[in-house]
Amino acid sequence: MDLAEIYAALRRIAPYTHRTPLLTSHLLDELLGKRLLLKAEHLQKTGSFKARGALSKALTLEDPKGLLAVSSGNHAQGVAYAARVLGVKALIVMPEDASPLKKAAARAYGAEVYDQGVTVANREAVARALQEETGYAFLHPFDDPLVVAGQGTLGLELLAQASRRGSFPEAVLVPVGGGGLAAGVATAVKALAPTTLVLGVEPEGADDARRSLEAGRILRLAEAPRTRADGVRTLSLGAYTFPILKAKVDGILPVSEEAILEAERLLHTRTKQVVEPTGALPLAAVLEHGARLPQTLALVLSGGNRDFSP
Amino acid sequence: MDLAEIYAALRRIAPYTHRTPLLTSHLLDELLGKRLLLKAEHLQKTGSFKARGALSKALTLEDPKGLLAVSSGNHAQGVAYAARVLGVKALIVMPEDASPLKKAAARAYGAEVYDQGVTVANREAVARALQEETGYAFLHPFDDPLVVAGQGTLGLELLAQASRRGSFPEAVLVPVGGGGLAAGVATAVKALAPTTLVLGVEPEGADDARRSLEAGRILRLAEAPRTRADGVRTLSLGAYTFPILKAKVDGILPVSEEAILEAERLLHTRTKQVVEPTGALPLAAVLEHGARLPQTLALVLSGGNRDFSP
Repeated sequence: MDLAEIYAALRRIAPYTHRTPLLTSHLLDELLGKRLLLKAEHLQKTGSFKARGALSKALTLEDPKGLLAVSSGNHAQGVAYAARVLGVKALIVMPEDASPLKKAAARAYGAEVYDQGVTVANREAVARALQEETGYAFLHPFDDPLVVAGQGTLGLELLAQASRRGSFPEAVLVPVGGGGLAAGVATAVKALAPTTLVLGVEPEGADDARRSLEAGRILRLAEAPRTRADGVRTLSLGAYTFPILKAKVDGILPVSEEAILEAERLLHTRTKQVVEPTGALPLAAVLEHGARLPQTLALVLSGGNRDFSP
Repeated sequence: MDLAEIYAALRRIAPYTHRTPLLTSHLLDELLGKRLLLKAEHLQKTGSFKARGALSKALTLEDPKGLLAVSSGNHAQGVAYAARVLGVKALIVMPEDASPLKKAAARAYGAEVYDQGVTVANREAVARALQEETGYAFLHPFDDPLVVAGQGTLGLELLAQASRRGSFPEAVLVPVGGGGLAAGVATAVKALAPTTLVLGVEPEGADDARRSLEAGRILRLAEAPRTRADGVRTLSLGAYTFPILKAKVDGILPVSEEAILEAERLLHTRTKQVVEPTGALPLAAVLEHGARLPQTLALVLSGGNRDFSP
């Protein structure tokens, strides 16, 4: 993975994605004693960065019959959107007991949801069988160079926007689940601004990335972790993303569930932005680890697909 | 009230307020079959347009000892902020049983909350007594030319921003409570774009503005109406605002509580913006009356001070 691949991805996806704004907030800066640059990826098409990776991959496929994915989250919507751009069908495999809201969200973007007899345990096998049957192209949510290159486009934009603003980040904080976003952003940042730190953030109850990087090998959680941050409930880093993180990420910060909730609350009340729990992970890390972080920080608000409650 | 007074207000308040953005949303436009221009006043200082009116008035006072207001809503925060700008104290009269959250919000902006023995019935009398005692200047939430001129600055900005975007609004929709915002915006719009309609929006259970304009005199609600839109729970239009509305507002649209909730939900899920119920009134009017509204509409999202619920 190098910068050229990320630039190539940007050229592919640019017509179909937003260059999301880099927001600032005097109130947050005052409250936390930092200069924060908020990469507003909750304003991306489909409400999260996943549209970048899905499109980056989908736009390289030669005449695909359809797109197939396993996801009950933002990747489902990213793939559904990519399929719409290509003018083909999207088929999303989701466990039967996934929330009706998540099924509805994927359908709202035009995808077909396949959930008959699907469980968390058998969903990969079901997807493989469907792939054989339909001939659709399978899009992995993170462990694919073209997907990682797509997520890396966010890092390119962030650095360009920060440069124009004259507040260059000393560290970039990014949520870590399977590692696709972190790998892409780290590749962009380390190529363009080698002295800027790249720090991953994960819930303390789902700290497999931190432990894996310490151990030097991929450690796997025994079961899906309980955390508000449902975008990072993945069991482990990927075979493709792990070595990139090992080479390019400077550290992983664990955060408590309380800090995630407080970060969501601050973004809601102070910046009036709807950010989902996973997207609030970087701000949660500032709340819990601010004292040992540098002054100017870029936070990746990765998505905004949070339920509405009146 | 004329355009010159609004321009003068703009020169006073510009250093201390945001020129809030004019947002658009492809998703909402597609869903509703309209071109919507969203004046994002939830991103204003203090989270609502009330900062404009409070500052417009406060900055004309000669050496005030402090500012005094009756409010358990956004006006309290606007006045508290204006006092901070002037470097004087703010004293806010609120009923003892007002929500602790609202008291905390006013205090967070540096105001002192006076609530001892205060009820909805006696709060005006308490404020008058406090005014005598302290010598602080009283700031009315809407029935004051300098406050109306301040709110009108939002209309000036909106028209300038729409012109640059090349989508000029055929109608501007604005929430109506006491009528300060509607009077200011209508004055600006009718002076600069006389063919653009100005439409007020109020909850159907609080339709005193519609009935007053029909009757040709100020009708007063018997008691504070029950509505999600707590920013427009005022009992009547003001003696100053009523004739302006009568001369310059083209109509008042009533909306149901269900439409207000749905409008909040759409703004939350589609635009990822936190808008309070009152700020969602104009979109609620598009949901309920869209068929008889023109194609290009400017909606004033008047504030974003909505409770955070996890």
